[in-house]
Amino acid sequence: MDREEIAVRNLSSSNRHMFPYVHKVGVPPKKHPWKEFSATLKETFFADDPLRTFKDQSRSRKFVLAMQAVFPILDWGRSYNLAKLKGDLIAGLTIASLCIPQDIGYSKLANLAPQYGLYSSFVPPLIYAFMGSSRDIAIGPVAVVSLLLGTLLQNEIDPTNNAVEYRRLAFTATFFAGITQAILGILRLGFLIDFLSHAAIVGFMGGAAITIALQQLKGLLGIKKFTKKTDIISVMQSVWGSAYHGWNWQTIVIGATFLAFLLLAKYIGKKNKKLFWVPAIAPLISVILSTVFVYITHAEKRGVQIVKHIDKGINPSSMNQIYFTGEYLSKGFRIGIVAGMIALTEAVAIGRTFAATKDYQLDGNKEMVALGAMNIVGSMTSCYVATGSFSRSAVNYMAGCQTAVSNIVMSFVVFLTLMFITPLFEYTPNAILSSIIISAVIGLIDYKAAILIWKTDKFDFVACMGAFFGVVFAAVEIGLLIAVSISFAKLLLQVTRPRITILGKIPRTNVYRNIQQYPEATKVPGVLIVRVDSAIYFSNSNYIKERILRWLIDEEERLKRGGLPQIQFLIVEMSPVTDIDTSGIHALEELYRSLQKRSVQLVLANPGPNVMDKLHASSFTSLIGEDNIFLTVADAVLTCSPKFAEEV
Amino acid sequence: MDREEIAVRNLSSSNRHMFPYVHKVGVPPKKHPWKEFSATLKETFFADDPLRTFKDQSRSRKFVLAMQAVFPILDWGRSYNLAKLKGDLIAGLTIASLCIPQDIGYSKLANLAPQYGLYSSFVPPLIYAFMGSSRDIAIGPVAVVSLLLGTLLQNEIDPTNNAVEYRRLAFTATFFAGITQAILGILRLGFLIDFLSHAAIVGFMGGAAITIALQQLKGLLGIKKFTKKTDIISVMQSVWGSAYHGWNWQTIVIGATFLAFLLLAKYIGKKNKKLFWVPAIAPLISVILSTVFVYITHAEKRGVQIVKHIDKGINPSSMNQIYFTGEYLSKGFRIGIVAGMIALTEAVAIGRTFAATKDYQLDGNKEMVALGAMNIVGSMTSCYVATGSFSRSAVNYMAGCQTAVSNIVMSFVVFLTLMFITPLFEYTPNAILSSIIISAVIGLIDYKAAILIWKTDKFDFVACMGAFFGVVFAAVEIGLLIAVSISFAKLLLQVTRPRITILGKIPRTNVYRNIQQYPEATKVPGVLIVRVDSAIYFSNSNYIKERILRWLIDEEERLKRGGLPQIQFLIVEMSPVTDIDTSGIHALEELYRSLQKRSVQLVLANPGPNVMDKLHASSFTSLIGEDNIFLTVADAVLTCSPKFAEEV
Repeated sequence: MDREEIAVRNLSSSNRHMFPYVHKVGVPPKKHPWKEFSATLKETFFADDPLRTFKDQSRSRKFVLAMQAVFPILDWGRSYNLAKLKGDLIAGLTIASLCIPQDIGYSKLANLAPQYGLYSSFVPPLIYAFMGSSRDIAIGPVAVVSLLLGTLLQNEIDPTNNAVEYRRLAFTATFFAGITQAILGILRLGFLIDFLSHAAIVGFMGGAAITIALQQLKGLLGIKKFTKKTDIISVMQSVWGSAYHGWNWQTIVIGATFLAFLLLAKYIGKKNKKLFWVPAIAPLISVILSTVFVYITHAEKRGVQIVKHIDKGINPSSMNQIYFTGEYLSKGFRIGIVAGMIALTEAVAIGRTFAATKDYQLDGNKEMVALGAMNIVGSMTSCYVATGSFSRSAVNYMAGCQTAVSNIVMSFVVFLTLMFITPLFEYTPNAILSSIIISAVIGLIDYKAAILIWKTDKFDFVACMGAFFGVVFAAVEIGLLIAVSISFAKLLLQVTRPRITILGKIPRTNVYRNIQQYPEATKVPGVLIVRVDSAIYFSNSNYIKERILRWLIDEEERLKRGGLPQIQFLIVEMSPVTDIDTSGIHALEELYRSLQKRSVQLVLANPGPNVMDKLHASSFTSLIGEDNIFLTVADAVLTCSPKFAEEV
Repeated sequence: MDREEIAVRNLSSSNRHMFPYVHKVGVPPKKHPWKEFSATLKETFFADDPLRTFKDQSRSRKFVLAMQAVFPILDWGRSYNLAKLKGDLIAGLTIASLCIPQDIGYSKLANLAPQYGLYSSFVPPLIYAFMGSSRDIAIGPVAVVSLLLGTLLQNEIDPTNNAVEYRRLAFTATFFAGITQAILGILRLGFLIDFLSHAAIVGFMGGAAITIALQQLKGLLGIKKFTKKTDIISVMQSVWGSAYHGWNWQTIVIGATFLAFLLLAKYIGKKNKKLFWVPAIAPLISVILSTVFVYITHAEKRGVQIVKHIDKGINPSSMNQIYFTGEYLSKGFRIGIVAGMIALTEAVAIGRTFAATKDYQLDGNKEMVALGAMNIVGSMTSCYVATGSFSRSAVNYMAGCQTAVSNIVMSFVVFLTLMFITPLFEYTPNAILSSIIISAVIGLIDYKAAILIWKTDKFDFVACMGAFFGVVFAAVEIGLLIAVSISFAKLLLQVTRPRITILGKIPRTNVYRNIQQYPEATKVPGVLIVRVDSAIYFSNSNYIKERILRWLIDEEERLKRGGLPQIQFLIVEMSPVTDIDTSGIHALEELYRSLQKRSVQLVLANPGPNVMDKLHASSFTSLIGEDNIFLTVADAVLTCSPKFAEEV
């Protein structure tokens, strides 16, 4: 007695009392086309129902709510208290000590003078504190965006020979980065940044971190002539090419010593979470120690490169420096969009991570408006693109920040620095800044995430590595392009080649499941059950039709070889088919006709509301017959098997 | 008493005959990463297993099979017989009589001299007959591709003043159209043309038909000065602007008479399918009658425009006219890709339609290689882009064609025409050609399909109308762009905003279904059941997490208002979730944590093989506990409800 005979026996003996009742497939009540359309629009753009709190409120209350929506500080500020201030004060001071040396270093990545990094840590955090809704993010310039901006800008203007135009283009790009972010938020297109997959971001960030670290070899080895390209091959050629004459041993000693110190501090902070402040203040201590050392020993006369000069005073206005006309307008616009999107991705990822940890809700679109506003204002006050920093946000969180007030504290410290302390940075060696950047970006190489991606999803891993190698071996923008392309290709692949599986009956149940996942599941004689695991759209309708036919032909050949009775019913389990379009219905009609020619009856199981609606509208239901549509596969099999038994 | 015992007990009281047994969720056997990857690649590019017949064959047999694969005529030619020849002969003669006047008219749409249309009906059909596998398609120039090519080419070169360069660019574009088609086929990227949705094609074709018909007003009204733009506003301005001085009443009389005749013939053919030959030969009869009429009355001296001259003799070589260098290379390349893709879409749609009607298989990728080869050869023999014609293929089918031999017959008739008859077309009035084109393209306006699209899918209808109005009010390429963009937007929307529904128990069954589709379904107290209707990918993972949480919050608020017990279990029905990536797993983890904070237990029902695999690999299964994953929602509810009952 073979497998299939057993199945028949099973059916006749046990299934009779199982489904004493066959429920009809429901057709949802007809909706007005406009209502249907607006419901789709609402779910696409206003999925979070942002106006929910405005319902049934007086006009003045609505105004207050609107002001609170734009400036959340008006909401949380009312319950602010001394206990919270204490946490914010400590956190703010800690991130300030971390951000000052980082800012000076990062502005070099963007090919800008050091004060511009500090400027960008003064105005944007203030704006964000009033408009943003994340409690843990630390705002300011970040390594990856600085590098990206620097690379894209120097493709257009040489930063050494045309410093003024270069800076103007930087402000223009910052302005449009802000505009992009704000518009995405206002138009509620925030979901667009979701199109960069996690895997692609991991690869991109890791690649950018390596690229940034390699760039620091210039400062760390004291090389004067260095390539402007960022790919690993050009950089290593530059490094080895200058190995005999270009390296400066005094610089190397200073750099290596402090790099070791910083990495040790990082290690300590990692081992003991309570000592989080050690790596947080280590950079500032390094800067102070090394500056004093250089000042005393006059090492700058022995070839140790120093910062030399930082402008004193707060941000000058740069409103009239933004290009609103001319060829640089479109270039700044294009660069701004790219930098703005990447900055957004980073900030939103950080915001979401900490919101999930502390379990508060974050409105992505509102967040984008805040970030956009902050960069627009920034571009008019000599700042370049600022966003949320991974490393500083983590420190902020661990130092016990309570609200965005920690950003205000940090901003105030940077203000004091700009007003009084900048001249003291004159003798700070560049090698220290390089060490600080290296120790900061190392944290961006998330090899554990990469391993997990490899384990979970090979395709994701390809995207991750594509972005990584693109950044490391070609250029930042190439890596980004690869990341986006692979992400899109994956989505399109999903809608082009959906999975179509054969189902079998799981023994001792009435459940039909994939026979690959459940090898113990048995096929029902005379019936082929397939499940389509996707909406049936123009992009896959032909594939689905042809795949199902091929399953049928394979199965028929197999049965013929075994001398077994042929298939008479093809049941298509439609549960996962969320939607169907006109091309999909055409494909079903063609499938039905092809099956008719082979004397196989098409039977549908559990079409969803949308699908039922459209099958009705297109009269497909009357073509195959309403009584060939069932609520469950089990119902369908029950109805088909007796027919089969009668005929055989 | 442990969980399973409870389940069993519970079962024994009421559900004994329904679910006597809880089956474990299967984890598919671990596959080697490379095998998994290559299986995906195979299913993407070689879904139809093209090398299947080559298995276990001798080397000489393999050679024969390969030759037959490239030249299907070697396969079907062996069983060719007189009966088939009879059908092909009649069909070939019929489509030849239809194609000759159409070709002369269509070449005008492409801004080429009339003989180039005839050339394109001589060589390409011959090549196709040897390499193609469709039995019903009729090859040659078609209206929409001619218009598209004409529009794109005249954007680059003026066809009146620089006729030679224009023609060279046309051959270059044809060459690259062929290359594009062949490469898509060879690389098995044929599925790319599936990205143009049925709705978009209906709209685009309808728009193109209207545009082409409007262009014919020039010939039909005898207007000499006519706009080069194709949008309806420019054309109507041109028509009305020349209303008093530019129209020629003799032309109008001739044109209107024969247009009426052609439309009447079309109507007769539609009413009585047996009289299909009436509309098929009507154009040729019109040409003959009107030519004789003009020749006798010398109407050309009264302003009736005539064809004047068609080169005699067959296709000259154009191999050395293709631009392989210079600025026109890239322009020809770009135009060729667009025209090639559209031509491909049309040919494949026709091929599939008739293959489905006669129930034979058509290999899309092989078809593309055939079409590509035919256009490459065509570009070297003074042809422009040829493809399958809707109107002539339908006539071919109705005339009883059996194989591609009907194309050979047609090609031979065109050959005879080129050799001997072309001088006779000298006096053919242009108005007749315009009438013929109008009566041909009217069939492309598929208003019934548009109505069906409106009924079935509102979003599809927007795509359809977008393409239609884009072509009619802007330009052919704009309409095309709109069609492609809307098609993509729809796919992306699907993967960004998947449907998430609440399930309830259908009375008297053990089945859980969407409560919107089945209003009679009841919720289970203390349990919220949601179903995610899509793969969980980076593009939607955040949305899914937030949507589920919002369902939960809404439901909790509702329960609180009603003083009902709160939710303790959230069951996520995963049947439709075909795949999950690392971002998706992150989202699930975040969902799990958020639920923990609300004392709600996350329970999964029926994750598929892929999903189970990845949940295991990422240790998510151990995070939520293996015993919180069930085969069916019913199993999950059975296990959750008793716990709930105990605690309340």
